[in-house]
Amino acid sequence: MGDVNIRSLAKQLNLSISTVSKALKDSYEISIETKKRVVSLAKALHYNPNPFARSLRLKKSKTIAVVVPDVADSFFSAAIKGIEEIAQAKGYHVLLYLTHEKYLKEKKILEELKNGRVDGIMMSVTSETIQTKHIEEFINNSEYNIPVVFFDRAIDDMNLAKITTNDFESCQVATQHLIDQGCKKISYLSISNELSINKKRIEGFKSALTTNHINFSNKQIVECTNNAEKNETIITHLLLTENRPDGIIAGVEKLIEPVYIVCKNQKINIPTALKIISFSNLPYAPILNPSLTTITQPAYQIGQTAAKVLFKGIEKKGYSCNNENIMLPSELIIRESTSN
Amino acid sequence: MGDVNIRSLAKQLNLSISTVSKALKDSYEISIETKKRVVSLAKALHYNPNPFARSLRLKKSKTIAVVVPDVADSFFSAAIKGIEEIAQAKGYHVLLYLTHEKYLKEKKILEELKNGRVDGIMMSVTSETIQTKHIEEFINNSEYNIPVVFFDRAIDDMNLAKITTNDFESCQVATQHLIDQGCKKISYLSISNELSINKKRIEGFKSALTTNHINFSNKQIVECTNNAEKNETIITHLLLTENRPDGIIAGVEKLIEPVYIVCKNQKINIPTALKIISFSNLPYAPILNPSLTTITQPAYQIGQTAAKVLFKGIEKKGYSCNNENIMLPSELIIRESTSN
Repeated sequence: MGDVNIRSLAKQLNLSISTVSKALKDSYEISIETKKRVVSLAKALHYNPNPFARSLRLKKSKTIAVVVPDVADSFFSAAIKGIEEIAQAKGYHVLLYLTHEKYLKEKKILEELKNGRVDGIMMSVTSETIQTKHIEEFINNSEYNIPVVFFDRAIDDMNLAKITTNDFESCQVATQHLIDQGCKKISYLSISNELSINKKRIEGFKSALTTNHINFSNKQIVECTNNAEKNETIITHLLLTENRPDGIIAGVEKLIEPVYIVCKNQKINIPTALKIISFSNLPYAPILNPSLTTITQPAYQIGQTAAKVLFKGIEKKGYSCNNENIMLPSELIIRESTSN
Repeated sequence: MGDVNIRSLAKQLNLSISTVSKALKDSYEISIETKKRVVSLAKALHYNPNPFARSLRLKKSKTIAVVVPDVADSFFSAAIKGIEEIAQAKGYHVLLYLTHEKYLKEKKILEELKNGRVDGIMMSVTSETIQTKHIEEFINNSEYNIPVVFFDRAIDDMNLAKITTNDFESCQVATQHLIDQGCKKISYLSISNELSINKKRIEGFKSALTTNHINFSNKQIVECTNNAEKNETIITHLLLTENRPDGIIAGVEKLIEPVYIVCKNQKINIPTALKIISFSNLPYAPILNPSLTTITQPAYQIGQTAAKVLFKGIEKKGYSCNNENIMLPSELIIRESTSN
């Protein structure tokens, strides 16, 4: 009996969840016949709306969820800071969920959030997230109208709010900078070729090569992993090949350390033998050996903006934030790792 | 009328909150006379227990709160990862609150958590937290029995669970290492001389000096701030004095960057003219210029252990975790910044 909920009622009656929900609330939108069917099955199955969930729905939980791959990453930690600041000012509480780049964790988290625990969700998808079914299911099957806002790592095909940065342009500018500094064989290190932000960056990368009449080969896109040891092996292999790159763009901050370590171990001088740029918000970039040229994303502002959009979606009656699509520019900060 | 709650009833009746709560639940522990007084005032004031809070109390919120100064710090981000992993496995949700090192924010957060939103709290206090009244009030005035566990930054005088590291010994070992490397004038950079962990570190620092027959002066303890620009000024001033230190121990990771930057600007060679050790979990320590000797705390394990202790306190009936006092050892990792 404990398992009877609005979803199972809807299924048995072959009605939508929204119809069942409205019928139980005696909405004028639903025919008397349908109401009778719904109420009679609900009674037969001893269905009782979850009072905790109802309380949340009526009172609002005053809680939002932030779903991110990692917290030990200077982009995400700065974005979380931005989100938390807006939430605190609004009197909202922030639930933090880490997916560790696992699609199945992301799926499970969304399933748990269907019950009205939060008023809104902000998410940056995992590098494994190719399917969108779990997000669609969350939106369609939730009893509540819980807005979802993507930040940084969005799924382009979905009609949801997106707060991102200019991935195409910033990678184009970074690639051009490496070419200007004399690089002829540039590799782009990615942790997922499926992520929309990576696709855009790779397009920006290719575009700069084309502009400079440099041929592109798929080998230039090096797919790394979420495992530090494997990444060191992949990067060692890359830098020990005969035709090794003379320039590297790292798509994610955690690839900086293995690149620097491999260069140190293999006595490959940065920037003489290899120039490096990373997408990174690392405050330590200026004091690395050598200091690191970065494409710095406005992480804090992305977090703040995404939170503001979400709260508009939560608080403004009759307004959907789904069409919000805001792009904040990143900045190329040139340091020693690309000097010549 | 909306403001009538169990606390205001208790105040008016000059009874403890616990007595009022038990009286309203018709507990055998309370005399009939007292019960009558409580119920009659409750009725007169139209007191109704918050159904949302009651639901939470009965059903458990399955939520814990993590209250930390900052998330953009590799110690805290790793500790949060450890906490989150244990919480996810237990089916708990994690609310994240950032105090930004502000005592008043910490106080406000605890006030908001009194209403039963969470089943337990893990906290690392701010550098401003000298008073303990807000924590005592939380524990004494909460309608629920919500366990609180300190991790890393604890308040020693309070009888609550504490998961910390060996601050005294690790700072003693670090100081000894600097002395062994030839340092004669060592400064300890602190962001708060009030924090218990800093006091212990300073004691360890003094102890190593004494063992080596080196005089200690209060000037060797340099109090920095939570403001990056001010810290740069303080550190510049410190390193431009005639009798400047030849060794530095930084008590907190965020002081590394200004020390390195000032040394770069002032052309002070690390490690020849100045040797540096920092308390830090920074994954980038090996690739700084020069690589940084660190006292590395077991951040992830501290987070995991603290979460396990908290869940025992939440789930084990009749058990209080307050007496848990676990110390996990830190490790001195020697790198170029202290070589000679």
